[in-house]
Amino acid sequence: MTLAPDALAELVDALPGSVVRTDPEVVEKYRWDWSRDPGAGTPVAVVRPEDDEQVQVAVRWAARHRVPVVPRGAGSGLSGGSSAVDGGIVLSLERMSAVEIDTQCQVAVAEAGAFNADVKAAAAEHGLWYPPDPSSWQICSIGGNVATNAGGLCCVKYGVTTDYVLGLDVVLADGTLVRLGGKRIKDVAGLSLLKLFVGSEGTLGIVTRAILRLVPAQAPRSTLVASFPTVDAAAHAVVAVRRSLRPSMMELMDAASINAVEDYRPMGLDRSAGALLIVQCDAPGAARSEEIAAVRVACEEAGAADVFETDDPDEGEMFVEARRLAFPAVEARGALFLEDVGAPVPLLPDLLAGIASIAAAHEVEIPVVAHAGDGNTHPVIVYDPTDPAGEKRARLAFAEVMRTAIALGGTITGEHGVGRAKKAALPDQLGADVMALSHRIKAALDPDGILNPGAVL
Amino acid sequence: MTLAPDALAELVDALPGSVVRTDPEVVEKYRWDWSRDPGAGTPVAVVRPEDDEQVQVAVRWAARHRVPVVPRGAGSGLSGGSSAVDGGIVLSLERMSAVEIDTQCQVAVAEAGAFNADVKAAAAEHGLWYPPDPSSWQICSIGGNVATNAGGLCCVKYGVTTDYVLGLDVVLADGTLVRLGGKRIKDVAGLSLLKLFVGSEGTLGIVTRAILRLVPAQAPRSTLVASFPTVDAAAHAVVAVRRSLRPSMMELMDAASINAVEDYRPMGLDRSAGALLIVQCDAPGAARSEEIAAVRVACEEAGAADVFETDDPDEGEMFVEARRLAFPAVEARGALFLEDVGAPVPLLPDLLAGIASIAAAHEVEIPVVAHAGDGNTHPVIVYDPTDPAGEKRARLAFAEVMRTAIALGGTITGEHGVGRAKKAALPDQLGADVMALSHRIKAALDPDGILNPGAVL
Repeated sequence: MTLAPDALAELVDALPGSVVRTDPEVVEKYRWDWSRDPGAGTPVAVVRPEDDEQVQVAVRWAARHRVPVVPRGAGSGLSGGSSAVDGGIVLSLERMSAVEIDTQCQVAVAEAGAFNADVKAAAAEHGLWYPPDPSSWQICSIGGNVATNAGGLCCVKYGVTTDYVLGLDVVLADGTLVRLGGKRIKDVAGLSLLKLFVGSEGTLGIVTRAILRLVPAQAPRSTLVASFPTVDAAAHAVVAVRRSLRPSMMELMDAASINAVEDYRPMGLDRSAGALLIVQCDAPGAARSEEIAAVRVACEEAGAADVFETDDPDEGEMFVEARRLAFPAVEARGALFLEDVGAPVPLLPDLLAGIASIAAAHEVEIPVVAHAGDGNTHPVIVYDPTDPAGEKRARLAFAEVMRTAIALGGTITGEHGVGRAKKAALPDQLGADVMALSHRIKAALDPDGILNPGAVL
Repeated sequence: MTLAPDALAELVDALPGSVVRTDPEVVEKYRWDWSRDPGAGTPVAVVRPEDDEQVQVAVRWAARHRVPVVPRGAGSGLSGGSSAVDGGIVLSLERMSAVEIDTQCQVAVAEAGAFNADVKAAAAEHGLWYPPDPSSWQICSIGGNVATNAGGLCCVKYGVTTDYVLGLDVVLADGTLVRLGGKRIKDVAGLSLLKLFVGSEGTLGIVTRAILRLVPAQAPRSTLVASFPTVDAAAHAVVAVRRSLRPSMMELMDAASINAVEDYRPMGLDRSAGALLIVQCDAPGAARSEEIAAVRVACEEAGAADVFETDDPDEGEMFVEARRLAFPAVEARGALFLEDVGAPVPLLPDLLAGIASIAAAHEVEIPVVAHAGDGNTHPVIVYDPTDPAGEKRARLAFAEVMRTAIALGGTITGEHGVGRAKKAALPDQLGADVMALSHRIKAALDPDGILNPGAVL
């Protein structure tokens, strides 16, 4: 669709000078998120509002002219959820980044552009904690976290973003601003609209502000690192631990991801291990060492070759940091398709075995890291972008990994979102009836389809 | 509206003999839930399906003839959410009560008519626990719990129903059966439809089955009972405890509810207390006694006159049982309007003071019990049903308590639902824009308005 020539001028006039940018070199930077979606379009403008009212002005303008609006937080998304659309605008919330802590109510009131790290830091000043911790926590926005219902490492014990959202301010497709929820903890008055917007990836409204529940600061953690001869043995250890315990972190790295990290930045990980589990427990007092002891027993019974424990927070954090480095480390090896598939926890060994078979069948390298305690895995399909045949095999493997997850009663995305990268696979998971239901909700809230068109549905 | 004479025969023919009942003495029993809504209608039939397909047959029939469908679990609702509608059918899920435990995945698969207690008991056989515990847990259904997003006593630490729902089977207004979610823990594929149905009180679809997350059995609990000279002092103790701790239970009873219980069934509660707090902690190992000690300090600093502690589970349970008796005890005193208002926790003293002022101003008795740790209170407005002036004053007080909660940034219902009893007050809390948004969702999912008409919206 083509925008009437004077329509853009109308938007520029309606907002202060620095809010609307149309210069190509600025616009270019807003075309992609981290998924570097090759299908990303070129927007007619980037709008960077400073308050709710400016968001409303932009959305009302877009509604009037039927212009696609792609909302964007920090651009760290991994599924192309904020890839730009030709002829649309990118609505970047980066300037709306205020964070206020209400210590009495134990909530953070965060604008959508605030970083997850900003909320954690502001809470910590008052002895409080915002648990959700995507690996990208230092550079991802709260708006993006809400949009994708982001998970992370500690959600195995502490839950995901939706569990912490008590309130949202949302600008709807017609520019109306609605305030949902508030600082109360329990509230069942009316439909669960709040929860509907969490995870809607900008397709139902533009989240401008979130009221986030905080909890008392996390207790000290102990860390256990176990190396296993095989991924299968590590996966069985995870299943065994989950039967009786909820560790505060339970991450898995396979041999390929261990070696990718060691190549990228030597951290002293055991290159000969088939897999590593990095487990943390934060139970209070003596219960912590009891939990760690139980994890050790489960790991040893599952065949762990070596188990290391530390109560030292810095030493523990080093292992977690090694785990977080897996993405940049693998990214340094070539182009990649990043998966985010999950399965019920007891089927984690089957999912990981299936991924290994797919790698072998398609002759592609698929290093795996996983939020293993939740059954959520991140296979990373690496390919040489200069080799079209290799890219094609990688693409086939990408689709097949999702089919394997679905066949196990799992999901194509545990925390990254569907975005544009996984849209084609969504009907395979949800089925025609749930897709139809989703489209009815979408049509009710965004009848002209201007909000993040092409994403999710 | 009037049903065509042969339409009902069509329904009777389409389902096995015992499923559809039209005899007046049977129908009469299905007109009310526990709120005894005086406006409850008389349905043309009660339908008690035995499986999904029979639910679909009934809903398809209702859709064809535009007949209202009021879904019903165990009929223990407190807001008239399952009051019957003239000319409609009551769709009782009571016969669909199967519960299966998947110990590997740590989930219960429960049909909507299963009691909360059935799920707890089945889980306990495998060392697992389903935390949500409405006071009515022994006689309320999982379908009703999902419909209202029910809370309970332990949700101050363990969350509410929505936090445990991993999957739902839902029959939509046109009879389509959709399966949402599954046994995986993390899943962000597509819109959060699952969460939208939780708390929708049967207005968007008929939930027939839920996949519920289970956790390892609760650790042993210690119980602390503190008596305070005033409700205000007890409320301030709650606020102080919440600053650093998450007890697994934190209940408040005021003098009127204490005395009502003692009149009803003497339990040895301190009749002279202005308020009691009943607190439980279940932290592992030695941390439990540390938490109890911290609660004691907070209570004493807030002015507790007497603090009693016990590690004996039976003794602790006796106090919890006394708290649970408050509703039947107060009910024995006359007719009542049951409130369920909440406020942000630090405003609990203000909410309770506001309720006391309303009681004084309208000369009505308003005993209060509260899930104090969540800021969720149950003022019970007692009146003499034979005194029209008294009933009128009670009705004014009922509305005024809700207005007070809203003014404090709170809610008209923390866990019981809006149903029909609180429908009039919902727009005061949500505002016109959120009401309009809710109506758009409702229209998208139930365009003919056959699902629980008159409830919530």
